[in-house]
Amino acid sequence: MRILGIDPGLAIVGYGVVDFVGGKFRVIAMGSIETPAGIDTEDRLEMIYNDLTEIVREYRPDEMAVEELFFNTNQTTGIAVAEARGIVLLVGKQNGIKIAEYTPLQVKSAVVGYGRSEKKQVMELTRMLLGLDSKIKLDDTADALAIAVCHAHCGGSRIQDFYNQKKTKMT
Amino acid sequence: MRILGIDPGLAIVGYGVVDFVGGKFRVIAMGSIETPAGIDTEDRLEMIYNDLTEIVREYRPDEMAVEELFFNTNQTTGIAVAEARGIVLLVGKQNGIKIAEYTPLQVKSAVVGYGRSEKKQVMELTRMLLGLDSKIKLDDTADALAIAVCHAHCGGSRIQDFYNQKKTKMT
Repeated sequence: MRILGIDPGLAIVGYGVVDFVGGKFRVIAMGSIETPAGIDTEDRLEMIYNDLTEIVREYRPDEMAVEELFFNTNQTTGIAVAEARGIVLLVGKQNGIKIAEYTPLQVKSAVVGYGRSEKKQVMELTRMLLGLDSKIKLDDTADALAIAVCHAHCGGSRIQDFYNQKKTKMT
Repeated sequence: MRILGIDPGLAIVGYGVVDFVGGKFRVIAMGSIETPAGIDTEDRLEMIYNDLTEIVREYRPDEMAVEELFFNTNQTTGIAVAEARGIVLLVGKQNGIKIAEYTPLQVKSAVVGYGRSEKKQVMELTRMLLGLDSKIKLDDTADALAIAVCHAHCGGSRIQDFYNQKKTKMT
């Protein structure tokens, strides 16, 4: 299963493409789409749309995992992030990729096994699970990779769906 | 000038296409894109993308006016509205339409002349300005038509841009 993890934003969309086969991870690509401040929102949204469509067509992920949004602090930033997130979901849908959403709590629980764990701890365990050298800087891709790992570990629901479907067909 | 006014939402996107020529309005089309509850967000966003693209290609507006978002009450709804709004902005940009954004206060001021006016008052004045019979139900299109009227009345900035550009070229 090839998973595209996405950390949505208007200024920076972090992404990580990860293969999860036989319980083992392999990082295929990681990076970020960056849009300049000072241009119109619609221009930035179109850049995200175009770049993400290109990424999706290059790496052909089976599934996409995106973080759910909560607005606690800055509402203006929150609106911009949600607008960008709408574009991310659209690109996934347009390219036939199944989309899963996870809360930050689910991501932390799935990666570290504890929902209240520190950001740094999540990053270190993500790195370990993915076999990434400590010299490789994760920066804007850390959250995207973590949610990809989360999806692989929670992905049972999808596999479950598959078996349920099969079972239904067989009876 | 043909203006497309948009009242964004995930469940309902209200729209109104209005011609504003020689200080007079003419309503070309009005309606709403509705998406069913109970299906995935990405499916609803794609429906909005497809339907709005169709509307834009049919009516070919010169400019689009969309309300700015503020999250006061329901944050979960707010996130969904912002995601849908991202799609609206993308469709505008992809079809080469200039986009303007207005706050609810600006819309009320432009239509009624008073920023704290009642919703009903805004609707009645919108109806009057557009020459719409009182028998025609505005429902989900009321806000979209109001923002189109607002843009026509505030649209001087755009026309100004045009003349400034011309002036620059001539010197």
